[in-house]
Amino acid sequence: MKMENLPVNSLSLDFLTEFLISLEKLENDRGCRGVILTSGAPKIFSAGLDIMEMYGKSAEHYAEFWKAVQEMWLRLYQSNMVTIAAINGSSPAGGCLMAMCCDYRIMAENPKYSIGLNETQLGIVAPFWFKDTMVNTIGNRATERSLELGLLYSAPEAHKIGLVDQLVPEEKIQSTAAAVMSQWLAIPDHARQITKSVMRKPTVDRLLAHRESDIQNFVSFITKDSIQKSLQMYMGMLKQRRG
Amino acid sequence: MKMENLPVNSLSLDFLTEFLISLEKLENDRGCRGVILTSGAPKIFSAGLDIMEMYGKSAEHYAEFWKAVQEMWLRLYQSNMVTIAAINGSSPAGGCLMAMCCDYRIMAENPKYSIGLNETQLGIVAPFWFKDTMVNTIGNRATERSLELGLLYSAPEAHKIGLVDQLVPEEKIQSTAAAVMSQWLAIPDHARQITKSVMRKPTVDRLLAHRESDIQNFVSFITKDSIQKSLQMYMGMLKQRRG
Amino acid sequence: MKMENLPVNSLSLDFLTEFLISLEKLENDRGCRGVILTSGAPKIFSAGLDIMEMYGKSAEHYAEFWKAVQEMWLRLYQSNMVTIAAINGSSPAGGCLMAMCCDYRIMAENPKYSIGLNETQLGIVAPFWFKDTMVNTIGNRATERSLELGLLYSAPEAHKIGLVDQLVPEEKIQSTAAAVMSQWLAIPDHARQITKSVMRKPTVDRLLAHRESDIQNFVSFITKDSIQKSLQMYMGMLKQRRG
Repeated sequence: MKMENLPVNSLSLDFLTEFLISLEKLENDRGCRGVILTSGAPKIFSAGLDIMEMYGKSAEHYAEFWKAVQEMWLRLYQSNMVTIAAINGSSPAGGCLMAMCCDYRIMAENPKYSIGLNETQLGIVAPFWFKDTMVNTIGNRATERSLELGLLYSAPEAHKIGLVDQLVPEEKIQSTAAAVMSQWLAIPDHARQITKSVMRKPTVDRLLAHRESDIQNFVSFITKDSIQKSLQMYMGMLKQRRG
Repeated sequence: MKMENLPVNSLSLDFLTEFLISLEKLENDRGCRGVILTSGAPKIFSAGLDIMEMYGKSAEHYAEFWKAVQEMWLRLYQSNMVTIAAINGSSPAGGCLMAMCCDYRIMAENPKYSIGLNETQLGIVAPFWFKDTMVNTIGNRATERSLELGLLYSAPEAHKIGLVDQLVPEEKIQSTAAAVMSQWLAIPDHARQITKSVMRKPTVDRLLAHRESDIQNFVSFITKDSIQKSLQMYMGMLKQRRG
Repeated sequence: MKMENLPVNSLSLDFLTEFLISLEKLENDRGCRGVILTSGAPKIFSAGLDIMEMYGKSAEHYAEFWKAVQEMWLRLYQSNMVTIAAINGSSPAGGCLMAMCCDYRIMAENPKYSIGLNETQLGIVAPFWFKDTMVNTIGNRATERSLELGLLYSAPEAHKIGLVDQLVPEEKIQSTAAAVMSQWLAIPDHARQITKSVMRKPTVDRLLAHRESDIQNFVSFITKDSIQKSLQMYMGMLKQRRG
């Protein structure tokens, strides 16, 4: 499954909707037991949530957008398929979340690529289920430090703290992902799926129990003048950087 | 406490019943403050739950068997004694669970020995309290990968991820266990016991709250035709391998 | 913020009261966004709870003392400021707890300094929220072993298990702490504070839900004859060692 929302695979509402439809098709296809998530964009796995969806829009729009982000997490984190992230580019914020949802993460050893939940750097806050997903991946203390400082890790650092499982030279990432997939597909589906559910259900249930209030939180946070202003500044900076 | 249910220390109903009686005797013996769990069988610590107890029997039998497995875990995980596992052989599935119940794990550095919860490899699923015990030992992410793939670790790998605490040459395992025991017995019993209970009680309470439904789950799972068939195939494979 | 309750920065009721007042002043000072916690005593960061407050006093006194210890933890663990521990000396028991409450821990590489929750060595038991704080810092298994054995770690050992984040030569500890503080202060306060609260609130809420029973537990434990006797012996040993 190659993400191609050029230039940077931003998770816009359109892209998320498309992603969910594709994922559901694969999920319902009995011939498909596993999916490799990778990027068709150069140098970036996914830039995360699309800032354009969080700026200058209506409260209804924000709510709809956030519901789609939740849905993406719910489906990907609980997928019945084997999910492998072939991280062939940088993967900040929502991009890192997608990678963490997978069963296994392989990252290209490119010194320019980084990965992490860097929300606080932008003055925003990762919601509790982003945090839970990271705690499940790298433990409580590493998550605390990561989130408070909004850290982006290089590939070797990410590997050291367990944020990715394996590093490979960039040209080998797809072949390695395919080899790892074979290993996972050798396990009886039924036993693997139940085991995955036993591991992840408590985390999923926490969002399901607070889904509406989580949407309300997001809407009331993102509509604040101060937040809108800092997003505007950030977008200005991005524009300047690009040229 | 040397386990001797030859050839492979399978946890049969008889063996579990005997084990529980021996453990209770020691627990009530004021002169006994610690126990070293080791194997009298060659090359194997314990092969785990006895498959013969899970195949071709009545639902009542399965329920009785599962209750005994729960009881073993409840008693060993909460023992007031210092419990040290001297893992002098392979230790898959239920054998790994017993080792994880102890306060400290020493494993022989023999390249032929492996340890892990490999249930999914057999098409079955480790119950939530096996999972909880492993999460308490090696953390969430390593457990997720271990359980979904049914991984068996070599001694060095097990040491690296924290599944065992110490590796020693095989001939030194009993003397090392005795030395470690002295270190643990130097701590005032009362304070150590309360501390152990503070650490482990939440995990124990989770099983106690769902003990009956956990038995029902096991019985309805194990009586499925597909599961009985895959156990039959597995037993056939074992027979062939042996002879 | 330099602790100076000579000779060993024992956490007496007076010292805790003073500490809480100072902390609150800084917390309410809009100009103060971060605090470095360090010691003015030679060779010791803090010796932990003052044994004099736990011996030969009334139940009312014990209750008042314990409430102050809880309050110190509640305020420091949830501080809105960036909190950095510059651990320039040994830090057993309550001293280790204070360090673990901070956002970041730097320890001097002096072979004579040690850190840990060593309560069981004295025959007493670390309460559940000491345990929770340690689990949040170094994970469940390392905490279990630490607490059951009452382990004190050397600086390199503490660094290896993640109990401290960074080691530096003793003469560089203050300058390093200042440099780390700049890094943390570069993050927008508001986002960092909410993130910290998302991470720590569940742990805090557990104490708040059981605050009174935790005080009762402490009082009934500490007033036991056997505990009073072992504290008396311990104080005798300390006196002898000093002179």
